[in-house]
Amino acid sequence: MSGEFDLISRIAARVSSRPDVVLGIGDDGAILRPPAGHDLVVVTDTLNSGVHFPEQTAACDVGWKALAVNLSDLAAMGATPAWCTLALSLPQPDDVWLDACIDGFLALAAQHDIALVGGDTTRGPLSLTVTACGFVAAGTALHRDAAKVGDDIWVSGTLGDAALALREALQGRSCSDELRWRLDRPTPRCALGQSLAGIAHACIDISDGVLQDLGHVCDASGVGAEVRLDALPASDALVAHVADAGRWRLQSAGDDYELCFTADPMKRDALAVLSDSLDVRLTRIGSIVGGGGMRAFDADGIEVHLQSSGYEHFG
Amino acid sequence: MSGEFDLISRIAARVSSRPDVVLGIGDDGAILRPPAGHDLVVVTDTLNSGVHFPEQTAACDVGWKALAVNLSDLAAMGATPAWCTLALSLPQPDDVWLDACIDGFLALAAQHDIALVGGDTTRGPLSLTVTACGFVAAGTALHRDAAKVGDDIWVSGTLGDAALALREALQGRSCSDELRWRLDRPTPRCALGQSLAGIAHACIDISDGVLQDLGHVCDASGVGAEVRLDALPASDALVAHVADAGRWRLQSAGDDYELCFTADPMKRDALAVLSDSLDVRLTRIGSIVGGGGMRAFDADGIEVHLQSSGYEHFG
Repeated sequence: MSGEFDLISRIAARVSSRPDVVLGIGDDGAILRPPAGHDLVVVTDTLNSGVHFPEQTAACDVGWKALAVNLSDLAAMGATPAWCTLALSLPQPDDVWLDACIDGFLALAAQHDIALVGGDTTRGPLSLTVTACGFVAAGTALHRDAAKVGDDIWVSGTLGDAALALREALQGRSCSDELRWRLDRPTPRCALGQSLAGIAHACIDISDGVLQDLGHVCDASGVGAEVRLDALPASDALVAHVADAGRWRLQSAGDDYELCFTADPMKRDALAVLSDSLDVRLTRIGSIVGGGGMRAFDADGIEVHLQSSGYEHFG
Repeated sequence: MSGEFDLISRIAARVSSRPDVVLGIGDDGAILRPPAGHDLVVVTDTLNSGVHFPEQTAACDVGWKALAVNLSDLAAMGATPAWCTLALSLPQPDDVWLDACIDGFLALAAQHDIALVGGDTTRGPLSLTVTACGFVAAGTALHRDAAKVGDDIWVSGTLGDAALALREALQGRSCSDELRWRLDRPTPRCALGQSLAGIAHACIDISDGVLQDLGHVCDASGVGAEVRLDALPASDALVAHVADAGRWRLQSAGDDYELCFTADPMKRDALAVLSDSLDVRLTRIGSIVGGGGMRAFDADGIEVHLQSSGYEHFG
């Protein structure tokens, strides 16, 4: 069992650097050199054990997910990841758990060339807070307040797998590795987000559920949205598990680290090319309309009354 | 009682901005414009209830301290504060507690012109993680690895008040407001840190206790230190409470957000001027020597055997 400074050394010994990291882990702060002509995008998200992940989640998956949820926020802003910090509270020192957690964290960090440059290790209930920094060419970050009437509404990937896996886990049932992976190892859509500058109007990460997060886009943009619930993209695994009629509830329950964005219908061809080149499924699920609020329709075009959907802490 | 998005709105409505904040609270991330020719310094520190502050600590003090400990790290790097994020876990929504916490946080933020630009609010045991960003002219940040043989060792302010106040609180005894304030409302030495570029060699924030943190400076710099324990600066309140002989133990117990730095003896006059102009007490407590390790001496010049001192999580 290690003390605090041994834990920090264990992490420091394993991280990769980048040329713009002047000084990484090991001082009171990290020293970083931002690129000229760029805006800095800063995001932060916390994962608490038993709230954001089931308590029995494997340490490597916890590490992965703590970074993934932050990379997803950078993606939603169109930013290229650069640096991050990890504030880790552990009930007791545990080298095996820590090494596995850092395994997962650094595996995803390597995929996105983001350097872990600092953090804090403290005693407390298991919790991870990551702050991630990325860059966009000055003035080109994506906002959630930029949706325009007439825009198509798009989502990446498929929705609902994580919610299904969580439901099965909470009910003590096993599910396929593929589904569980979608809960524990979300894929942040960084390349997509970075490619949407000049194509998308508004963009948001739909970690709280597509309908709720699309509602944020509408509120911020002063517009409304009409969504076809049967158009929400579903994986084969989800289709096999859940009947059509209620599927949208799982698909809007949250924990999907996909992007929802709006774009002029003139951009459909460009988005088809982008989908192919990035190998990311993109699905049109509705349209931005005037006024405010969200309306949803089923496969027969009949309006579905939306009660609260999505995840809200203290909701 | 408010939901998560109401909590965020309550905070967003109260924060100040700065010209270099392109987009603050309310999107997936903040958009910030770093100044040209500067390095970015990033620090992060967590406060857990019952670990970093007594559970009965007033909410406004918790908010203040969460920012203060991070500003102290920026000070140790010589950085000018710019932006910060707050990740806040609360067991249940509590508008009164939250408003008071933000009162304390923003009161200190206003003193240092640092803008709260984002964060996360989640359900979980009470915990606050702040990540703060500041700037230094490129290449001028202070490091802990730059101490040189022959340097004087200096500390700012007085040491031990917070440890005394904590001891009294844990033993159910009251103490003066002045002492309690030193525990709950530490004063980060930002102006001092920013003024030490070109004067100090190594610098560190001594939140874990002066002897332990000075040990980090020695290890990082490949030097040793000799310290006079009777020279550790004490407030009148501490002197009144604690006899001379054992005072150094409280003075090296941690939770003092002062700076310890080393400087060439040629800089004594410059430091006297700085002390006067900033109205911050600066005290020489020893010297950097060759070799490694730390030796401490009492008022009679007799060596004192240092067992572990200072605060280490999992220590």
